Parts: sequence; structure tokens; C-alpha cells
Amino acid sequence: MGDSTRLNDLTVGALIERLASSDPVPGGGSASALAAAMGAALVAMVAELTIGRPEAVEHEAAIRELRAAAQQRCAELLGLAEQDAAAYQAVVMARRLPKDSEAERQARATALRSAMVDAARVPLQAATAAAEVLDLAQRIALIGNRRAVSDAGVAAQLAAAGLRGALLNVRINLPHLAADEPLRDSAPAQIAALESLAAERERAAMAAVDARLVSP
Amino acid sequence: MGDSTRLNDLTVGALIERLASSDPVPGGGSASALAAAMGAALVAMVAELTIGRPEAVEHEAAIRELRAAAQQRCAELLGLAEQDAAAYQAVVMARRLPKDSEAERQARATALRSAMVDAARVPLQAATAAAEVLDLAQRIALIGNRRAVSDAGVAAQLAAAGLRGALLNVRINLPHLAADEPLRDSAPAQIAALESLAAERERAAMAAVDARLVSP
Repeated sequence: MGDSTRLNDLTVGALIERLASSDPVPGGGSASALAAAMGAALVAMVAELTIGRPEAVEHEAAIRELRAAAQQRCAELLGLAEQDAAAYQAVVMARRLPKDSEAERQARATALRSAMVDAARVPLQAATAAAEVLDLAQRIALIGNRRAVSDAGVAAQLAAAGLRGALLNVRINLPHLAADEPLRDSAPAQIAALESLAAERERAAMAAVDARLVSP
Repeated sequence: MGDSTRLNDLTVGALIERLASSDPVPGGGSASALAAAMGAALVAMVAELTIGRPEAVEHEAAIRELRAAAQQRCAELLGLAEQDAAAYQAVVMARRLPKDSEAERQARATALRSAMVDAARVPLQAATAAAEVLDLAQRIALIGNRRAVSDAGVAAQLAAAGLRGALLNVRINLPHLAADEPLRDSAPAQIAALESLAAERERAAMAAVDARLVSP
């Protein structure tokens, strides 16, 4: 990014402009985390629209827990969106280092590998958080205010997209890590597990939404 | 929404807060359109990161077209996010109309059905625009800068999520339309067609991304 304004403080219009610009930061990693954060926010909204309603009395405690969990994941994902932009900015800076001499090439490669660790680690955290949002969306779809069940479905869609988008960012950065970087060995299994989780939870969430989104 | 601030002018932090609040506006419809707009912005970014690169010379004209189309869809989806909030606000206002007498109940029902037409029509437009973004994401995934192919994949994910999220909003509002409202008859086939398109284009886009996102 040209300056260090936090994504959180940009207007929606300015965020979109920056995403669309030739500057690679913010990019898909931040956008994925923000999409999942919007999903978490919608889970919180559905909870708000359910708490206190007579038909939801039996689920009141569960709904309050879902709201708290959604708010926490929302804040976490907003933070990860910022961290992703910072991590990728460090990659961009490392790539711009000179590579005229052998010493410069080595220094550049070291800086790049080090920056890439964060650029892979942060979206992996974002994918993990998004998987939790997907779970929250499924749970609120089952017991939340039926009039807002489409919002629970949107939450699930945004969380699933954020999860898969974050994993793409892990996958593209992983090969640039040092051969002895532990994340390089551990990440593939985590990616595969999160991909399975995404498919399974998305299916479950959308089935819950469909079941309650019926014609009157 | 408590006031008439355009979503575009809210900070990201304020947008997320409003999504999470007990106020049903903005809700899943606007969030879906915004996610697809972020996807369109990322297609434009990948185009920017491709134009002028030696290996992309043969695709230069196509990439420029993709960029222009992405910018146009992005602006359209931002506008639809605003329209969705306005349309649903009108629904909320109609629901709050008094229903003590038969005349009041009739007036309220008429206002509600009329507001619901926009609340169904706007997300249907958003889903249609998101389907185009999904197509653009697939096309840029095939010929765009390979280093940004993950961004093309994120674009596809956000467009697919926005498309499906928008359709949920159409589906939940459709039963509230008057029986003789043409959209009520025409929408189901459009929904089914857009759902197929989403599945088909998402698969094609992710296959294109996977093919070019390989370990070096």
C-alpha cells in the first residue's frame, strides 16, 4: 500500500479502489479475511435478530454464545486482514531488493523467504478462523430467526469463500519458504483438512438454510 | 440503517459494525453484492499486474477488455449493494406500519408487497452481475500473471459466494410478492439457471487456478 492506513479505516469505496489498483497490496489474502469477517458479522446480526424472541426462548443461551463467538472471530479476521496486507507488503519490499551481486542475491533470497513465512502463516490462520465462522453460520441457521435465515446462508457462503481464498494464498506462497521451514512440511496436511472441512460445513450450512427457507 | 450514509462512504470498520448490529439493514443482500464487488476489483488488479508484461503480449488486448469489464461490474455491484440496503429499508418501514384496522392492514400489505418487489429484483440483478464476475475471474485465471493467479481464484470464490448469497435473498423475498407480480413467476427459472451457472463457472475457474498454481 502506498501508505500505512489500516484497512479498517478505509472507506468501502477506497478499499475497493485499492484492491483494484496495480498495487498488489491489499490483495486476495486481505479480501478473503474481510469476506469471512463480513460472514461473522452477519452471524452476529442473526443472533441479534433472534435474542428475545418468544419462539427462541429455549435457544437463548446458545444464541448468546454464538453471538459472542461470532464477534470474537469477526475481530480476529479483521486483524488478520491487516496482518495479511503487512505480510505481503514485506514480500513486495523484499522482491525489490537489488540482485546484482551474489551477496545481494543471497540477502534478497533470505529476506524473501523470511517474509514469505508470514505471507503463508497469516492466511492459514485466516482459513482456520473462517472455518469456525462457517460452523457458527451452520449453527445459527438451525436455530436463529427464520426471517433472517438467508443472512445465515450468506454468512456461510462468505466464510466458505474466505476460507478457500485464504488457502489459495497459503498454497501460492508455500513453495517460496526455505526447505527447512517447518510450516512447509506441516501446511499441506492442514490445507487438505481445511478444504475438507470447508466442503462438509458448507454443505451442512446450506442444507440447514434450505430446510428453513421454504415457501410459506 | 439509522441514517442514510452510503455504504461506499462507511469505513470498513463501520460497515462491519453495521452488518453485525440488530438493525437488519445493511444485511446479507448488501454483503453479497460487496463480496462480488471485491471479486471484480481483484480481477481488475490481476489485469493491472499483467498488462505490459513481456509474457502477456499476445493477450494484451484481451486483458485490457477484462479489466474494463471488471471495473464496470465492480461499479455496478457497489451500486446494487446500496440499492439492496435501500430496498430492504423500505421493507422494514412497511413492516412497521400500523395494522390495527382492516384498512391499515390492507395498506400495510400493499406497501410491503411493493417494497418486496425491489427486495427481490435487486439481488437478482446482483446475482446476474456476480455471474459475469465469475466468468471474468475464470478468463483472467487462464491468461493473467501467474504470480497473481491466487487473486484470480479469490475473485472467483467471492463472486460465487456473492452470487449464491444474492440468490438466497431473492428466494426469501419472493413468496411475499403479490400473486400477479410477474417476477414471482419468472424468478424461479432465473434462480435455477444462475445456480447452475455458479457451479459450472466456479468449477472451471478453480480448475484454471489449480492448473497454474503448481509447485515450482
